[in-house]
Amino acid sequence: MSEYIEHDKAGVSVGVVEKKFYTFAEPPDKLLLENGNNLGPVTLAYETYGTLNPEKTNAILVLHALSGDSHAAGYYSKEDPKPGWWDIMVGPGKGIDTDKYFVVCSNIIGGCMGSTGPSSINPKTGEPYGFDFPVVTIGDMVKAQKVLIDHLGITKLLSVIGGSIGGMQALEWSVRYPERIVSAIPLATTTRHSALSIAFNEVARQAIMSDPNWNKGDYYFGENPDLGLAVARMIGHITYLSDESMRRKFGRRLQGKDNFSFDFGADFQIESYLRYQGNKFVDRFDANSFLYITRASDYFDLEKQHGEGSIVKAFSRTNVKFLVVSFTSDWLYPTYQSKEMVKAMKKNGLDVSFCEIKAECGHDAFLMPIERLSNLVQGFLKGVYEE
Amino acid sequence: MSEYIEHDKAGVSVGVVEKKFYTFAEPPDKLLLENGNNLGPVTLAYETYGTLNPEKTNAILVLHALSGDSHAAGYYSKEDPKPGWWDIMVGPGKGIDTDKYFVVCSNIIGGCMGSTGPSSINPKTGEPYGFDFPVVTIGDMVKAQKVLIDHLGITKLLSVIGGSIGGMQALEWSVRYPERIVSAIPLATTTRHSALSIAFNEVARQAIMSDPNWNKGDYYFGENPDLGLAVARMIGHITYLSDESMRRKFGRRLQGKDNFSFDFGADFQIESYLRYQGNKFVDRFDANSFLYITRASDYFDLEKQHGEGSIVKAFSRTNVKFLVVSFTSDWLYPTYQSKEMVKAMKKNGLDVSFCEIKAECGHDAFLMPIERLSNLVQGFLKGVYEE
Repeated sequence: MSEYIEHDKAGVSVGVVEKKFYTFAEPPDKLLLENGNNLGPVTLAYETYGTLNPEKTNAILVLHALSGDSHAAGYYSKEDPKPGWWDIMVGPGKGIDTDKYFVVCSNIIGGCMGSTGPSSINPKTGEPYGFDFPVVTIGDMVKAQKVLIDHLGITKLLSVIGGSIGGMQALEWSVRYPERIVSAIPLATTTRHSALSIAFNEVARQAIMSDPNWNKGDYYFGENPDLGLAVARMIGHITYLSDESMRRKFGRRLQGKDNFSFDFGADFQIESYLRYQGNKFVDRFDANSFLYITRASDYFDLEKQHGEGSIVKAFSRTNVKFLVVSFTSDWLYPTYQSKEMVKAMKKNGLDVSFCEIKAECGHDAFLMPIERLSNLVQGFLKGVYEE
Repeated sequence: MSEYIEHDKAGVSVGVVEKKFYTFAEPPDKLLLENGNNLGPVTLAYETYGTLNPEKTNAILVLHALSGDSHAAGYYSKEDPKPGWWDIMVGPGKGIDTDKYFVVCSNIIGGCMGSTGPSSINPKTGEPYGFDFPVVTIGDMVKAQKVLIDHLGITKLLSVIGGSIGGMQALEWSVRYPERIVSAIPLATTTRHSALSIAFNEVARQAIMSDPNWNKGDYYFGENPDLGLAVARMIGHITYLSDESMRRKFGRRLQGKDNFSFDFGADFQIESYLRYQGNKFVDRFDANSFLYITRASDYFDLEKQHGEGSIVKAFSRTNVKFLVVSFTSDWLYPTYQSKEMVKAMKKNGLDVSFCEIKAECGHDAFLMPIERLSNLVQGFLKGVYEE
């Protein structure tokens, strides 16, 4: 925690950054998706921090989770009050040291922060795709990222790193393009969703699709399904925290009063927190993107897609170095799931480091200022870079 | 499991039963609620099984959970395909043996299965209460049950028993009317909701209140908020199961096909299960009752209401015997919460038996045919009855 505060005090960040866009329509002429369809043209919003060295050996790809975007670090202007979503990790002297490395982060396809997704214009109709947008997979997202990496002239990434759905992308990179990466750092993630994780996503999707404003995905010229999306986000937030962290953070504390209201207002602080998170989210996120990205995460199944049902076989396709990290209180992707992947990696003789970090904040721990995590990532990257 | 199947095969049940109603308007003339309002007239739907002995010492009150009702056992007719919700526990020779005991079960106030609740007619307007129904508490529910027990001429109940919200009522009975009961059996319950439990309830309530058909609770002459209620029920079902039970029951199995649909249908069996549970629920349950009962469970706080913030002090108000049961995979009310109440009971020198039952089916375990649970209940009741 102290490290974070010091950084903050020192104002150490990559500074003012700019969102860039790369649009591609070939090769062949579009992106061939896993479902057999072609998508194109495809635009990727991305940002870069630090400097690519002349040998192009210091590039790291950061992969974001459900609600993230290309803005991993820095500020959009000097007045911008809020830095990128992983500013505690990406910056000068930080876990991913931008004094040493060239960092790339791009918005996933299916998203709504600049990359092609359901809210983008469908060239066939001149109107937003809506539900005509194809169901994309984690593999499709990674395929698009690889085109961007080609465009940037990077032959081999030093590392790919991400948490949660970003961790799934890191795992996908490791078996899909092992020749294009030296290492991968999947954090707080899984090789495939459990029934419990699918269940949470499905209920969140049902909340959105039950909102009459959702209108079968065709709402871009009307009212947004904000109420449904807010409920979906609230469900998500429960899974990002933990029993323990909620107890510490909220317990049964009331919202600025001593007694119950005996109505249905937000009496408890936890109620108020969830309502706030739900309402805040609808201002910045597209409901259809929520549907598509959660669907992609539910479909993700490394063993099925790359190992004919065997996780050991899936990792036989790679030779990269791994740093796998789980968090004790993460009940969305519990440690046993990380241990299973580590076991399969080791069975293939891979060079893998694994660490379970003690943290009370649940699944979201990978986004928190945890000194041990920063040190682990920094040390691991130093090792692979010096080799 | 085997015991249940044998019972089923043998058709051992209390047979055909009848739902009865008791309406009271006094004393004083209505039910004085915890929020300071009066409610009345109050109708309670109830059922009884077995025979009250001449000494009236063999009466047991069964307390139902969120979606239960007064129909705990037996069938409404010979053609009725489905018995009451706790038929595996209540019947001849079963855990609560109707050959020995006289069993009463009544629908809670705030419910929608015959007792006064938000869908009942408000005598002031001649129309359903809707959101004019007062926010009732677990204490209010128990207060109403006590009027029914008075009406039945029972001075002292041999036991009160229930799981989940039914368990809260059992705990409430034990400190509110200790002189009226010999023993209490709270199962899979807690003396107060954790922030996590409140969070789940709040999101479920938001799902209902976000449905435009909900119309601020005033929908009895229009369309029901079925979509919102279905999502609320789906959220509930996730909490009733467990990671382990979902993995065993559903895993990542697909719904009768080998591959993904690449759309938003129910590909996974867990998705289909949740949708089915949600849709089925709306046919039999009132959305407002869902709001009121979950609110009552969130408000329930034995230490605050009866112990000035001390759980030990709360149990100093009682001298009844307890059998407390928790289940290993119940993550809604984990064992540590039961252990806390047991510790507080013991500090008061109370006679308490505690058992954590190994079960994979999560919170719903108390409703499942678990031979150990039946035997525990049977043995405990035998002990208190023979004394």
